Amino acid sequence: MDAAEPGFTRPGGRTARTRAAVLDATYAELVARGYAGLTVENVADRSGVHKTTVYRRWGSVDGLVADALSLAADTFWPIPDTGSIEQDLLAVAREVVVGFTDPELRAAPAAVIAASFQSPRAATALHEFLVARQEQAAVVVTRAVDRGEIPAGVDGVEAIRVLCAPLYYRLFITREPVDDGTAVRAAAVALAALRAGAV
Amino acid sequence: MDAAEPGFTRPGGRTARTRAAVLDATYAELVARGYAGLTVENVADRSGVHKTTVYRRWGSVDGLVADALSLAADTFWPIPDTGSIEQDLLAVAREVVVGFTDPELRAAPAAVIAASFQSPRAATALHEFLVARQEQAAVVVTRAVDRGEIPAGVDGVEAIRVLCAPLYYRLFITREPVDDGTAVRAAAVALAALRAGAV
Repeated sequence: MDAAEPGFTRPGGRTARTRAAVLDATYAELVARGYAGLTVENVADRSGVHKTTVYRRWGSVDGLVADALSLAADTFWPIPDTGSIEQDLLAVAREVVVGFTDPELRAAPAAVIAASFQSPRAATALHEFLVARQEQAAVVVTRAVDRGEIPAGVDGVEAIRVLCAPLYYRLFITREPVDDGTAVRAAAVALAALRAGAV
Repeated sequence: MDAAEPGFTRPGGRTARTRAAVLDATYAELVARGYAGLTVENVADRSGVHKTTVYRRWGSVDGLVADALSLAADTFWPIPDTGSIEQDLLAVAREVVVGFTDPELRAAPAAVIAASFQSPRAATALHEFLVARQEQAAVVVTRAVDRGEIPAGVDGVEAIRVLCAPLYYRLFITREPVDDGTAVRAAAVALAALRAGAV
């Protein structure tokens, strides 16, 4: 269709839409069948993109999962900037809690974490995604240092790890309950660690 | 053999040896093939216990994984008691780090964590195992309160979560490096949280 309508398509527009359709289908298939049930054929069927196109561009299910995370990493993420380190940390923690407890939101990221245990390439893609997110989120610590709220010399990325780790630990390791109180406690611990210079 | 030698066998001795052989074989198969490749047949072959015995007693691969964790939970675990909360926390963190980074030790627990993403029953068994371990380890906090090292009213189990979470988070979520320095930092954060009353 687009090829027949020159001038109506942004450069790369169709390519971008194809990519979005295929990667949305990848998440949907991961949620529906898990990594073990993920096939290029099913992703192609669900997306309406021809199987040979999917094979040519992504190669395999691992290529699909890696690119889905790469697209997610490029997606704009509004980092909290409330003017208070306490509130910023709490907002980041709440975003993780909501993202993994809201029934609609949680399915795709939870499926990606499960996939990382079955596919080394998915594990690498998840690693790169989370390392990038940690670095982005660490700006809340840098800003707090600039405001004089916490001592200089702290490691912002490590503070974000301390903040997020108890949430992921309960969600995916011990499988203990997670709610807003968990986010509140995680933020309090990260703040205590920052103030004590423990990160 | 044992049945032919009454008096030479402790009550339950053969049963206990059969259980140990089957559960050792379960870990070995999990490490070798992962949960997806775990079968009662292969566990029976590896253990030298008859397949019908394994089916009758454990029912399925899920039953095997759950019982393997149940046996691990009953295994004596020397909880550190150095007389200092700082050193006790560090010793617990180091135990986790060594257990998941030593090439010989890490395979079985890492395979169990991977299995928890594929089997709800394995996830439940892992949950019960880790909740029990957290409660056992929390005694290091209780003792520190009794010694007056940290304020009363802290949550010992939550302190152990704060201590262990960054280790599991790096090992199994972000897949970032873990070494002795990670244990040292985790212990410092848990101590800061305890001193600040954040747990």
